Amino acid sequence: MRQETPTFETRLKRNALAIETLLGRLLGLSTEPDEIVRPENLLGAMRHGVLNGGKRLRPFLVIECADLLGGSVDAALRVGAALECVHCYSLVHDDLPAMDDDDIRRGQPTVHKAFDEATAILAGDSLLTFAFDIVASPETPLADVQKTALVLALSRAAGHGGMAGGQALDLAAEKSAPDEAGIVTLQAMKTGALLRFACEAGAIVAGADATDRQRLRSFGEKIGLAFQLADDLLDLTADAETMGKATGKDAARGKGTLVALHGQAWAEARLEQLVAEAETLLEPYGARSSILAETARFIANRRN
Amino acid sequence: MRQETPTFETRLKRNALAIETLLGRLLGLSTEPDEIVRPENLLGAMRHGVLNGGKRLRPFLVIECADLLGGSVDAALRVGAALECVHCYSLVHDDLPAMDDDDIRRGQPTVHKAFDEATAILAGDSLLTFAFDIVASPETPLADVQKTALVLALSRAAGHGGMAGGQALDLAAEKSAPDEAGIVTLQAMKTGALLRFACEAGAIVAGADATDRQRLRSFGEKIGLAFQLADDLLDLTADAETMGKATGKDAARGKGTLVALHGQAWAEARLEQLVAEAETLLEPYGARSSILAETARFIANRRN
Repeated sequence: MRQETPTFETRLKRNALAIETLLGRLLGLSTEPDEIVRPENLLGAMRHGVLNGGKRLRPFLVIECADLLGGSVDAALRVGAALECVHCYSLVHDDLPAMDDDDIRRGQPTVHKAFDEATAILAGDSLLTFAFDIVASPETPLADVQKTALVLALSRAAGHGGMAGGQALDLAAEKSAPDEAGIVTLQAMKTGALLRFACEAGAIVAGADATDRQRLRSFGEKIGLAFQLADDLLDLTADAETMGKATGKDAARGKGTLVALHGQAWAEARLEQLVAEAETLLEPYGARSSILAETARFIANRRN
Repeated sequence: MRQETPTFETRLKRNALAIETLLGRLLGLSTEPDEIVRPENLLGAMRHGVLNGGKRLRPFLVIECADLLGGSVDAALRVGAALECVHCYSLVHDDLPAMDDDDIRRGQPTVHKAFDEATAILAGDSLLTFAFDIVASPETPLADVQKTALVLALSRAAGHGGMAGGQALDLAAEKSAPDEAGIVTLQAMKTGALLRFACEAGAIVAGADATDRQRLRSFGEKIGLAFQLADDLLDLTADAETMGKATGKDAARGKGTLVALHGQAWAEARLEQLVAEAETLLEPYGARSSILAETARFIANRRN
């Protein structure tokens, strides 16, 4: 019987299960050293915000990028789980009434609906904090120099100069529509920074040199742009049932997107171009990088 | 002319100025590597939340504990600034309408009043994230093994098993009053964990052995208990003008405190006992630890 390489879809699903399992274990009731107690209600809200059956695309990128360069998959899985905590915290806070005011996420009540606003704020805060805990933990099999690099890169990607800053620009964009350059900056921060980090983190986990690290970082930037463009297309065309959340909200709020500026045909052509550029960046790695190339195409073509 | 050792008050003020200056510089408009832009409004809210003329007691503890054991004061200052970002983020989020709903902090409008709720949420998120950035930054003159230890200890002190968890217990305490053990746990998490971390962080910065690290950690626990007891006494006795914030709110909300359970005389005796225990822990360091002993007394006797 011939041994088949798992397909992209199989690999993505297998990874999602591994991340869900690890996060479930990390967010169990038993305390770690230095923790006093884990309040049950808060832990429940954190679990609700993070154990949501997501695709775990960001952890997948960490793991596949680390694997490409010969890094430890165990370490990459933990760094991926940390990154997913940051991603999920941002969703919990973005859904709050003072922010995007969403009641439904992945077909489930958002954390502030299932619990309450105060608990959702604290659950988001705790997930963000926990991400750094997971990276620095003795259970993460990496050298201290790698952990420090990961903490620095993650905090820059997530903070005022990255994701949180992008969300602030997004709020401002509801009042005064940004021009094209403004939209590009906003999206590079809000969505792009964490995807860029995911790929760069894989290189850090693998102890890669500056060239490989920069190459995967650039790859992450390309797929970040593709991700946002695909998202904007979806917001325009998909229905709420497919997405598991409210759609058409960006347009309704007058938020500028590149799709709104240039049209659907332009966006589809641009997506193809971004995938081609991402693939070119992977060329030095040959056939080993085929999963990452498929990931880029998956991101460009996703329907939810 | 005889050279005087600066008094405690002078040292505390000098330190507060150094922290304020460093935080002001760190939160300037110029970006660091990996930051895309620093949105002006978000940065303004972060500055409003953190550059508030506080006593900077937590950074003071980091610096004095590091200094006691021969650690770098420059490194301790940066770690202190990081810790202050965590402390201030917690105040920004605690003041939100969904949490304690406070309009005034240190005689100034709270961040969500001076800006808006969404910006206050993001400013808090960004300050928390920035704390880990500051610790991991190449500008912090510490070994990677120290940075990893600091990131781990800080995330455990601040997260679901520490400060944020304590705030969650505090919210629950408004609905069902905890018993004495519950109050002690809540306070150890909400207030104690960061003060414990401050002292332990000084030991980590100094590259201290396990004995010294544990000793300063225990010292931090004692002054954490004293801090909260003094706070509860103040909430009962001080007026809003002295405190620069609303007072008597705990009692009004039916929140249990040890002062409410055991009375003012008991609390004052217990404070003296805690200061004595803290001083005993400092005995091996002799006269060099007099500033830390004064800090313990200051915390127990503070009037705002």
